[in-house]
Amino acid sequence: MLGRVDAEQPIADLMADVGRKARAASQPLSIASPNKKAAALLAMADAVDQRKAEILRANEQDMANGEKTGMAASLLDRLKLDEQRIASISESIRTIAGLGDPVGEIIAEWDRPNGLHIERVRTPLGVIGVIYESRPNVTADAAALCLKSGNAVILRGGSDSAHSSKAIHEALLDGLEAAGLPKDAIQLVPTTDRAAVGEMLKGLDGNLDVIIPRGGKSLVARVQSEARVPVFAHLEGLCHLYIDASADLAMARKIAVNAKMRRTGVCGSAETLLVDRLIAPSHLVPLLEDLRAAGCEIRGDEGVVELFAGAKPATDEDWSTEYLDAIISVKLVNGVDGAIQHINQYSSHHTEAVIAEDVLVVERFFNEIDSAILLHNASTQFADGGEFGMGAEIGIATGKMHARGPVGVEQLTSFKYRVRGNGQTRP
Amino acid sequence: MLGRVDAEQPIADLMADVGRKARAASQPLSIASPNKKAAALLAMADAVDQRKAEILRANEQDMANGEKTGMAASLLDRLKLDEQRIASISESIRTIAGLGDPVGEIIAEWDRPNGLHIERVRTPLGVIGVIYESRPNVTADAAALCLKSGNAVILRGGSDSAHSSKAIHEALLDGLEAAGLPKDAIQLVPTTDRAAVGEMLKGLDGNLDVIIPRGGKSLVARVQSEARVPVFAHLEGLCHLYIDASADLAMARKIAVNAKMRRTGVCGSAETLLVDRLIAPSHLVPLLEDLRAAGCEIRGDEGVVELFAGAKPATDEDWSTEYLDAIISVKLVNGVDGAIQHINQYSSHHTEAVIAEDVLVVERFFNEIDSAILLHNASTQFADGGEFGMGAEIGIATGKMHARGPVGVEQLTSFKYRVRGNGQTRP
Repeated sequence: MLGRVDAEQPIADLMADVGRKARAASQPLSIASPNKKAAALLAMADAVDQRKAEILRANEQDMANGEKTGMAASLLDRLKLDEQRIASISESIRTIAGLGDPVGEIIAEWDRPNGLHIERVRTPLGVIGVIYESRPNVTADAAALCLKSGNAVILRGGSDSAHSSKAIHEALLDGLEAAGLPKDAIQLVPTTDRAAVGEMLKGLDGNLDVIIPRGGKSLVARVQSEARVPVFAHLEGLCHLYIDASADLAMARKIAVNAKMRRTGVCGSAETLLVDRLIAPSHLVPLLEDLRAAGCEIRGDEGVVELFAGAKPATDEDWSTEYLDAIISVKLVNGVDGAIQHINQYSSHHTEAVIAEDVLVVERFFNEIDSAILLHNASTQFADGGEFGMGAEIGIATGKMHARGPVGVEQLTSFKYRVRGNGQTRP
Repeated sequence: MLGRVDAEQPIADLMADVGRKARAASQPLSIASPNKKAAALLAMADAVDQRKAEILRANEQDMANGEKTGMAASLLDRLKLDEQRIASISESIRTIAGLGDPVGEIIAEWDRPNGLHIERVRTPLGVIGVIYESRPNVTADAAALCLKSGNAVILRGGSDSAHSSKAIHEALLDGLEAAGLPKDAIQLVPTTDRAAVGEMLKGLDGNLDVIIPRGGKSLVARVQSEARVPVFAHLEGLCHLYIDASADLAMARKIAVNAKMRRTGVCGSAETLLVDRLIAPSHLVPLLEDLRAAGCEIRGDEGVVELFAGAKPATDEDWSTEYLDAIISVKLVNGVDGAIQHINQYSSHHTEAVIAEDVLVVERFFNEIDSAILLHNASTQFADGGEFGMGAEIGIATGKMHARGPVGVEQLTSFKYRVRGNGQTRP
């Protein structure tokens, strides 16, 4: 059976070996030329297309297992591959191949009075671990972003998609081989034993530099609480939309429906609507009627329930609940002060939007709220690396260390200093 | 006695309270205007000058205690304050006041095809913990850098300098008060109980965002192994100087002496000299004679001992020893390949220098060595935030996450995205 390991080799040893190989591969990868990395990525995309039949057969096995074990329909849908989805996997790899290469980019440079010239240049981080659930496309996306940024990657996919991930991984190895890059640059953990995750969280003897969890809240929570290496992640996206008294009502209505209802299951979906008390008498009913017409359940505070008959009363818990569903909590607040106060208390520091024409309100909202992404007169659903122009993202981080917001190739780099002199000694 | 806490309040509660106060102070601090922060810093510098007599009296107490407990002469020297050292403390605060304010700086901005304008702007990190040993000036330097970057700071100084640090801290509070900033922005841990450090390493219930240890290797090692929050630090500076066959011999001699002997106790001091085997017959003796004339002990590999009678044989341990003393290990290597291989094996990833005229050698040295600072034709002793033009540094980091190399005000910031639209919804 796939995923079972030889009883002779305990998981800890197996994973230590994976870590050592990744570290060894990270060195040639860190100095691989931009052309070589792009060539590898293009070859990977071609290999995914060429191995389409094989990948579909592997996916059928996963789907059959999933149906047998009673996997939920929504999860089966995420797991399922078809010709179009495979085409979008290879297309995504080609997009990443076409991005600018971040490694070696000079981020800053300056001269010192003594003649030293200092450059701060981007370098790879080293070895990145990606722990994800059943979406097989993550195998390709994560590997491509790590390769582009010069990092070795250790992929640990969910057991539900093990066959699909393995088939995609084979195609990725074809690409590495075609470009003459080490195959250990992209390793798929060869076991579905959960102990392998535990080993990754411990850091593989210093051979893992950062972990990126992609999946549900319980996976992310486990990684965040147990990992002994840095983690780029968001536990939840409790995003707020604030409608100021100075808002254009038509714009506010359009954005509110989009922010909540475009896709309710994504982290950038709005969960709480804050409405300036001043304009509640005129604006609240049309805003909430639009949402209800789009199929959204409304849970409001006292003032909201009073003005809008269709609202259920919200409980305290609602203000800290990420529904990921067609439900929104609605509260009247005292202007931007009230909005800032509520958001700084309940936010998950992911994404918040303000609809306002008053520039001072916008500046206060932008300055005083401590979240990764703040938007003015735009939908919270733009919280996405692709929408930011990063080509692709490996996730969104709500921590403030190193990466924040969408994590793309730039966020997968560190930097070093190159200092050029002509004989300077320090007095 | 200073530092004893009320038996009624256990250390864990005391420190939790310090954390909460710091977090509360970090919010107004994060939005304080550049002028307000600069004014606070200038008022602090003035207060240090005005309270000079008081600070000197406190320092005399620490010195007397140190002498009584038999503190080493070098530590007593680091502990000692006099009029000139106090003047340099206030001068350093004024320098930091005069730096550009990093908060709100737009690091990058771009437009999207849908009309969204995206800005990445610097924000404070939040709450910074600084754990340091007996140098009382760190109290002022660290606090000033954290304030400039909009961060609250929790200072935990060594017990040996407790009176001096407390007196300096009083002056810093004067400055905060004069500028109308919350006094909890700069807290000095009010106990010398070591359990307070343990509480900081645990992260003060999420109220501590990063820890910066300043001190000896055992302090840094403890912080790195036990901290459950990010750490900016270097455990050691095992810096290398490589003399290529293409080097200018006169320059190499001058830089070798400076890199090793200018100050032997700093982290940027060179510990290992690598010499291209090709030029050993002509270059090795003059290089080592200069070092010996400057008072340096030479420990060489076989080839070195053969060519230079004054060298003792090096053991394997020498290649991984940070002497912090007038001793250098010397090895012959096969060109830049040999140098890169040796450095990547033994380096602490802090600082390495190459002396060469061959630009290809320099490019390979710069690209293939994974250290925070790489120098060409300049002394390793330039590894310092002040020398980099950062105004001041709170330390040097050898990790690759977030901060790397000298940690100045920029490295004490995170960023967020400000996105401006005019009604955009996501299709």
